[in-house]
Amino acid sequence: MGSSRVFRILSTLCIALSVALFSVPAVADIPAETLEALGVSEHAAPKELYDKLVERYEDPKQGAGKGKYADKWQPLAIDQYFNPNLFYQPPTSVTKTTDGAGCITCHEDSDETPGAVAAWRKSVHSNLTAIRNLPASDPRFYKKELLEKAEENLRSLGKLGQHEQLTQVGCIDCHVGIGAKEGKHDKDLRMPDAKICGTCHLQQFAERESERDTMNWPHDQWPAGRPSHALGYQANVELATWAAMEEREIASGCTMCHINAPKCDTCHTRHQFSAAEARKPEACATCHNGVDHNEYEQFLLSKHGTVLKAHGDSWNWDVPLKDAIAKGGQTGPTCAYCHMEYEGKFGHNVVRKVRWAFNPTPAIADNLDHEWFQKRKAAWVKTCTTCHSEKFAKAYFDIIDGSIKQGLSKEQEAKAVLDKLYEDGLLVGQKTNRPTPPEPMKDAPGGFFQLFWAKGNNPTAIERDHAQMWEHDLIKLYKGVSHGSPGGYTYTEGWSPLIGDYARIMDENTKLREMAALQERVDKLEAGARQTLLNLDSTGKQASVGGIGGGMLLFGGLALWGWRRRNRELES
Amino acid sequence: MGSSRVFRILSTLCIALSVALFSVPAVADIPAETLEALGVSEHAAPKELYDKLVERYEDPKQGAGKGKYADKWQPLAIDQYFNPNLFYQPPTSVTKTTDGAGCITCHEDSDETPGAVAAWRKSVHSNLTAIRNLPASDPRFYKKELLEKAEENLRSLGKLGQHEQLTQVGCIDCHVGIGAKEGKHDKDLRMPDAKICGTCHLQQFAERESERDTMNWPHDQWPAGRPSHALGYQANVELATWAAMEEREIASGCTMCHINAPKCDTCHTRHQFSAAEARKPEACATCHNGVDHNEYEQFLLSKHGTVLKAHGDSWNWDVPLKDAIAKGGQTGPTCAYCHMEYEGKFGHNVVRKVRWAFNPTPAIADNLDHEWFQKRKAAWVKTCTTCHSEKFAKAYFDIIDGSIKQGLSKEQEAKAVLDKLYEDGLLVGQKTNRPTPPEPMKDAPGGFFQLFWAKGNNPTAIERDHAQMWEHDLIKLYKGVSHGSPGGYTYTEGWSPLIGDYARIMDENTKLREMAALQERVDKLEAGARQTLLNLDSTGKQASVGGIGGGMLLFGGLALWGWRRRNRELES
Amino acid sequence: MGSSRVFRILSTLCIALSVALFSVPAVADIPAETLEALGVSEHAAPKELYDKLVERYEDPKQGAGKGKYADKWQPLAIDQYFNPNLFYQPPTSVTKTTDGAGCITCHEDSDETPGAVAAWRKSVHSNLTAIRNLPASDPRFYKKELLEKAEENLRSLGKLGQHEQLTQVGCIDCHVGIGAKEGKHDKDLRMPDAKICGTCHLQQFAERESERDTMNWPHDQWPAGRPSHALGYQANVELATWAAMEEREIASGCTMCHINAPKCDTCHTRHQFSAAEARKPEACATCHNGVDHNEYEQFLLSKHGTVLKAHGDSWNWDVPLKDAIAKGGQTGPTCAYCHMEYEGKFGHNVVRKVRWAFNPTPAIADNLDHEWFQKRKAAWVKTCTTCHSEKFAKAYFDIIDGSIKQGLSKEQEAKAVLDKLYEDGLLVGQKTNRPTPPEPMKDAPGGFFQLFWAKGNNPTAIERDHAQMWEHDLIKLYKGVSHGSPGGYTYTEGWSPLIGDYARIMDENTKLREMAALQERVDKLEAGARQTLLNLDSTGKQASVGGIGGGMLLFGGLALWGWRRRNRELES
Repeated sequence: MGSSRVFRILSTLCIALSVALFSVPAVADIPAETLEALGVSEHAAPKELYDKLVERYEDPKQGAGKGKYADKWQPLAIDQYFNPNLFYQPPTSVTKTTDGAGCITCHEDSDETPGAVAAWRKSVHSNLTAIRNLPASDPRFYKKELLEKAEENLRSLGKLGQHEQLTQVGCIDCHVGIGAKEGKHDKDLRMPDAKICGTCHLQQFAERESERDTMNWPHDQWPAGRPSHALGYQANVELATWAAMEEREIASGCTMCHINAPKCDTCHTRHQFSAAEARKPEACATCHNGVDHNEYEQFLLSKHGTVLKAHGDSWNWDVPLKDAIAKGGQTGPTCAYCHMEYEGKFGHNVVRKVRWAFNPTPAIADNLDHEWFQKRKAAWVKTCTTCHSEKFAKAYFDIIDGSIKQGLSKEQEAKAVLDKLYEDGLLVGQKTNRPTPPEPMKDAPGGFFQLFWAKGNNPTAIERDHAQMWEHDLIKLYKGVSHGSPGGYTYTEGWSPLIGDYARIMDENTKLREMAALQERVDKLEAGARQTLLNLDSTGKQASVGGIGGGMLLFGGLALWGWRRRNRELES
Repeated sequence: MGSSRVFRILSTLCIALSVALFSVPAVADIPAETLEALGVSEHAAPKELYDKLVERYEDPKQGAGKGKYADKWQPLAIDQYFNPNLFYQPPTSVTKTTDGAGCITCHEDSDETPGAVAAWRKSVHSNLTAIRNLPASDPRFYKKELLEKAEENLRSLGKLGQHEQLTQVGCIDCHVGIGAKEGKHDKDLRMPDAKICGTCHLQQFAERESERDTMNWPHDQWPAGRPSHALGYQANVELATWAAMEEREIASGCTMCHINAPKCDTCHTRHQFSAAEARKPEACATCHNGVDHNEYEQFLLSKHGTVLKAHGDSWNWDVPLKDAIAKGGQTGPTCAYCHMEYEGKFGHNVVRKVRWAFNPTPAIADNLDHEWFQKRKAAWVKTCTTCHSEKFAKAYFDIIDGSIKQGLSKEQEAKAVLDKLYEDGLLVGQKTNRPTPPEPMKDAPGGFFQLFWAKGNNPTAIERDHAQMWEHDLIKLYKGVSHGSPGGYTYTEGWSPLIGDYARIMDENTKLREMAALQERVDKLEAGARQTLLNLDSTGKQASVGGIGGGMLLFGGLALWGWRRRNRELES
Repeated sequence: MGSSRVFRILSTLCIALSVALFSVPAVADIPAETLEALGVSEHAAPKELYDKLVERYEDPKQGAGKGKYADKWQPLAIDQYFNPNLFYQPPTSVTKTTDGAGCITCHEDSDETPGAVAAWRKSVHSNLTAIRNLPASDPRFYKKELLEKAEENLRSLGKLGQHEQLTQVGCIDCHVGIGAKEGKHDKDLRMPDAKICGTCHLQQFAERESERDTMNWPHDQWPAGRPSHALGYQANVELATWAAMEEREIASGCTMCHINAPKCDTCHTRHQFSAAEARKPEACATCHNGVDHNEYEQFLLSKHGTVLKAHGDSWNWDVPLKDAIAKGGQTGPTCAYCHMEYEGKFGHNVVRKVRWAFNPTPAIADNLDHEWFQKRKAAWVKTCTTCHSEKFAKAYFDIIDGSIKQGLSKEQEAKAVLDKLYEDGLLVGQKTNRPTPPEPMKDAPGGFFQLFWAKGNNPTAIERDHAQMWEHDLIKLYKGVSHGSPGGYTYTEGWSPLIGDYARIMDENTKLREMAALQERVDKLEAGARQTLLNLDSTGKQASVGGIGGGMLLFGGLALWGWRRRNRELES
């Protein structure tokens, strides 16, 4: 930080004053829903917006903390890094006190994280002066404005003098405190979370946080504010399945993705924190891939993906999204380009056009004509018209919504069959070997918990087939058709596997019922055999008395009549 | 189009004359089979070739149109874009008339498809003068010749004056008419198909169309001309499964790939129409991936794919395929390099070396020694000798053919087991809950339709296993070994999953027969119980009369004898 | 080879002398275990090290050759290329004799492998003078030292004069003999293997070979020296499943990966032999992908993979691994960077930090506290501290080991269930249709062989489920968590599929036992029916004699008593 440090010491005297006088409004394109939810005016000073954002961000009643199942689980050592705000403890093995320059020198030249320092050296953070000196022709020139914004935020927060400028954001600023002079490893070290990044990057922090305000479902299809990145950690820890899993290390794999809420480095990886990186589909891929939401694969296999793979190397990823086509040479869409856009503007709220949410359900399918959904569809169509005609986009949305509904319908049909089996007590081992899952999970046929918990005959094979149907096949159908991957919704993924699972469920249904019927017939035969025996016994006795006389004949006849009557009842 | 437009207006006067005099032959490397099929001489003028090609291309009797199941399905809105020649209707919402410059200006500066214009700006079409001025040293210099060819074609067709030159191919040329002065959105707008592209790119159009002429199977292993891209749309709409599917939006996913026949932009995507893009494997990937033909994945995981991924960025993709190694620095094969080559020349007929076609069948396996197959194998070996010795290539073809036959043999064994179950009426629910698929599908055990249609117990689980075996495992084995991906034919895909499905089929066969046998035993027991009851009844009565006398004894004894006899018959 | 050839002819006279005097030690960072195993001092001349290495490399008693099942299989034509040292035969069709320049000219200008020559032209081999003239600032400057090392090795081996320098490594050097003047195709042509490459690249050859020396398991968890690339061919041919497979062409797919032992071009592909290529993950991908060890996929989907995909194009892959971060601009790990490193140094022994080996087993899980494993874990943690804190790395290793153990535990539970079914003879068809696999395979429930061999009811479906559980799900869990792919160990791969297979096994267990119980009940009923018949018969007779007198009554009563007693015994 060199010379700016001296200047900073001098300038700290007037910070208190400058804060009071400071009146640059903090908000530009933050959704009105968020300003309203926070009770912040659009003319509020950065400090006011930041404080309100942080207050909610850290409020256990509004999605922060360990959540409603807090007593069911204990954090692992790795949780310090997944949610540092909640769990981080500085190391006890290193007690050295060092200043900002010392962090860099020591870590760069030792065995301890030289790679991290090397990445930071390539970051904007390591040389802000270079940003400040960019010519207007440079595609990264827009970062200069972001830098000035960051400085305004810091001034408003009392962390930077009114005429002071940043020259660098070093280890110490994020890991100890912005502008800190020194820190003691075992006492002052912190792991930064979104709140720390948001100190400078207030606009982006607010955009992220706004996700919880714009997911206001019209018929409670989902909990308020969800699904979203902003409440992603809550979604994780308040999932009964996750909280109840005994295998905590396995459960860490869920958490590893659900930390977009407290962390920014899931998209802008440490310590380069590259915006260009976050604009590439690979930034989304670690979480948005696989059986339950294969967006990355579907995109790559679409023609959109082809364009990216064929030409992406020649695009300039350093330009901001709004200039990607005009100045970046981009000729096809990316995750970021379509999902971070809303009505022509780009920001960190990625859920404003969400319609089918995480998984298609009847509560969504039956309400697509509602204005809430119509408005979002219109926003999507507008996005598509960047390259396609409105007529094309609408025609394709017919395909999207139509095929998702078709898949959903088939899944619902299978679900009814499964529910009936459960109701009839006919699932394999249902009466003999179906352990109840640990609290707070609840037993149910084909429930989500069965994808992560198994014991005895819970779940049964048919339940896994159904879980696969709605949580994998149907979602992949939805993601496939939404991303224009033909095999991704019709054949390789989506419809064909979905009806394959349907077929397995129907097959098993018939078999289970045939087996139950056969068992019943054998029950009857056994009952009959016992009765026959009794009758034979009677008959034998009767026979023996037959010679004596006809007096006992009536008894035998009655017994036989009774047996035949029972038999008919069983057969009916 | 600027100044050339003025020149064009003047020159149109002599077009009629120039056409008559025009004698530049159109055909260079178009397969003789095509010229023969069309009845066109190799010295024919471009117009003659073009007209004959278009006549066939549009002939419903030769694969065009809605096909033989036309009455079974109605097009969706999206079909306008999938097969514009059949279904496109201009928009009704826009009625403006505009000229060529107007299209560009308006779409570039509005919200409506600025991305499309940006892509076109990067295309060769947007600046043909730049192509004309390329120095001979430029890798794209060959495009100059293509441009001149295009102009010759246009002249022959009467669409360009004899001394007129193209400066640009703009929106209006493709979307209204080549050289059109203006167009009215709701009246004149068209969506270009292969026939429109072929007006200029006649050679390429003819090469594409030639695919149907070179797939002349010696023993009708496949319908004439198939499988091919040229008849790909026919293959789609004349598939009973596709035509009969109720879920039309899902079915659109099939169509989305089967539009190479009417469209060129599946490989050269809009609106950059890049040849370099079409040379990259990603151009093939959207269709050639997944469960039934994972060529893309198999290639990428082979050592050929490694070379591409490791070095491809340094290759010059702008050079034509024939120069890819010598001038483009290419050190490994690509889809295009091997599949578009035939006996040392490159073109848009991709099926001239096809042997195992879409899926391995006995009719192919049993005839590989036939000269038709031998000639194609020899052509392949020649392709491989670009980098490998002939001895190596032949040794590897032993692996290809050998392992496909081994997989096919196992699949056929499983098929026989399944067919016998069907014949014996033992499939799950076969007698109680097996709906007939809608016309024109035909019911059959393990049929292709079962991958896309399911109801009740049709298909059963075992049939899905078999469909998976021949349509997925076996094809992936074939594609894996053909593309040199070891795990792709032996383990991850191919053999190991194939015998896994075999094992499931054998498992189910045993279980179904055991269940049937048990049910039969219970039937017998029940029959016996009824008889016993009757006998007991008789015996009881007999006993009662026993005391009276021996006259009825004969009856009871006969009844018992009869029961025991029936019982033995059932047991045999 | 031009002018160096003349010089070489002159200098060969003094080679014998120079060898004797030569004393440059060959070994730098070769593991002490290897020097000890070979009985070579660290000051040994290159020739001594080389000869000892080759002696072991070619020793059938130490892993070379066709292995212990040599009599069970015959090589295919392709095996000439898979293991040329064992099987290669020169072509008979070409008899021409040519010199080094002739090879190049003829193959470059003909149809026969011009692509191979083009790749070689891009290799270091084609122009060693260029390497020798690199400025110290060039990232490839280190190759100059490698070249000098190679020359020292050749001198020590008597293949290069003391003052002679290499200018080129041409076709003839590898395919006939280093420095050979000419060769006859059908007599002298050879396919190079690791031993040939090792002539020049002695250090690398020794590093590769050292793998077998550093895999000294403390409790025989694995055979000595395995798993490793160095004994990879042995691992293949001495696998009973492989040796016994009838489908030899399919089996070639196994071999195709198991030829790292005799070959170097599996990582440095022909004929560019690029070090940069081998540093890229794609070099590993052809073998390290798929159901049983999807390292490549898991890495790509991790944040490590994201960094590579987002920034890798800007890294300089030509720098040696040790300089990748400092000079190559690398900001994230690659396969090579982490796996070729050991205690800060880089080399071709890739197994020195191996802990869980190929697949997790109790013998490993139960001994992780043993110092052998602790030392390896410490070496790993040190690797991670290149970018992560030690505290983070240790916390993450808790996740790795914890989750693998959790998966292993569930798999073992399922295995016990399967073993019991086998012991009880209850597997489908176990008593009626379970062929014994061909020698040297041994039958066992859920054995590895069942992934590649199937006949009748061997394996059963439940056994495939188990094979999948331990050989696929569990290994992918291990690879997923080890490579930081969250969905790769918790959901898409790993835990969720693993407990899905567990559920199927438990489901099948219940069903098989229920079916067996039902069959037993029917057996009993049938036995009862036969007895009833007998009794009825008796009763009938008895009845008939009842009228005659009571003398026979005792007999009928006794018979009934006996039947009822047997019945009770069966029921108990």
